[in-house]
Amino acid sequence: MNNEAPRDGGQRKRDTLALLTRPAVDVWVATAGPGDTDTPQPHLVPVSLAWVDERAVIAVEETSRTAGNITSSGTARLGVGPTRDVVLLDVRLERSLLVTDPAARELAERYAAQADWDPRTAGAGYRYLVLRPERIQAWREANEIPGRTLMRAGAWLV
Amino acid sequence: MNNEAPRDGGQRKRDTLALLTRPAVDVWVATAGPGDTDTPQPHLVPVSLAWVDERAVIAVEETSRTAGNITSSGTARLGVGPTRDVVLLDVRLERSLLVTDPAARELAERYAAQADWDPRTAGAGYRYLVLRPERIQAWREANEIPGRTLMRAGAWLV
Repeated sequence: MNNEAPRDGGQRKRDTLALLTRPAVDVWVATAGPGDTDTPQPHLVPVSLAWVDERAVIAVEETSRTAGNITSSGTARLGVGPTRDVVLLDVRLERSLLVTDPAARELAERYAAQADWDPRTAGAGYRYLVLRPERIQAWREANEIPGRTLMRAGAWLV
Repeated sequence: MNNEAPRDGGQRKRDTLALLTRPAVDVWVATAGPGDTDTPQPHLVPVSLAWVDERAVIAVEETSRTAGNITSSGTARLGVGPTRDVVLLDVRLERSLLVTDPAARELAERYAAQADWDPRTAGAGYRYLVLRPERIQAWREANEIPGRTLMRAGAWLV
């Protein structure tokens, strides 16, 4: 709990972009896939994030559950920041590129410039997933729950 | 990246329990539910955690997507800690109790003793979800990926 006044939308957007473009920032990636039964099964992993042209870019092993779930469902929910200064992004898969794909070259440079590792050094098994945000929410404490939605249907509200 | 030697299993278990029992610790709760179409939809929120008798206990609004997804699927995946010192728990729903249920009284006391809020003060719409860990993993950097599984099928391996 704190006693700070809630931030306005403009401040939250500036803080959100500062967080998403921070060097070596990580993101929790929540995905869903079919379970052993018919019950959908949640998955959650932390990975490095790059923010490139208003897209969230992650690099994941092609055979990972995260890659499989995003590829088949087209969707993920990302959480960034400590839990009392959160940014949540509901995203859709826009592009998927092998890290060795010549078409991924500029993306790879920009990913490596922000993240603290370069998946091109990890072998051929990695893919960049380019994720387009549809909704972005940001809040710190309970007094910031009102006004937490900064983007809806892919458009900034602030 | 760091240059520290990987922790052994015993140390990871001690660190994990220290984290899970820390006052006012939060947890990322990933769940899955049916989407608008047949595609499973991921959800992710940060909430306060209490660790009671080797169970993860969260308090959520009865009408929330998190409560609905866990109730219908029986499962969730929890992420605790900064992303470079993570503990991941695959859990199953063991019990669900309204915060006003007299049978929840001891649980409520223990939840309030660890969390920094008491859902009993928030009205009748909250439930405690008691989540039994089936698998627990803990790692810091890439050198701790081997040996990251501390619990499997509900039993500590270390």
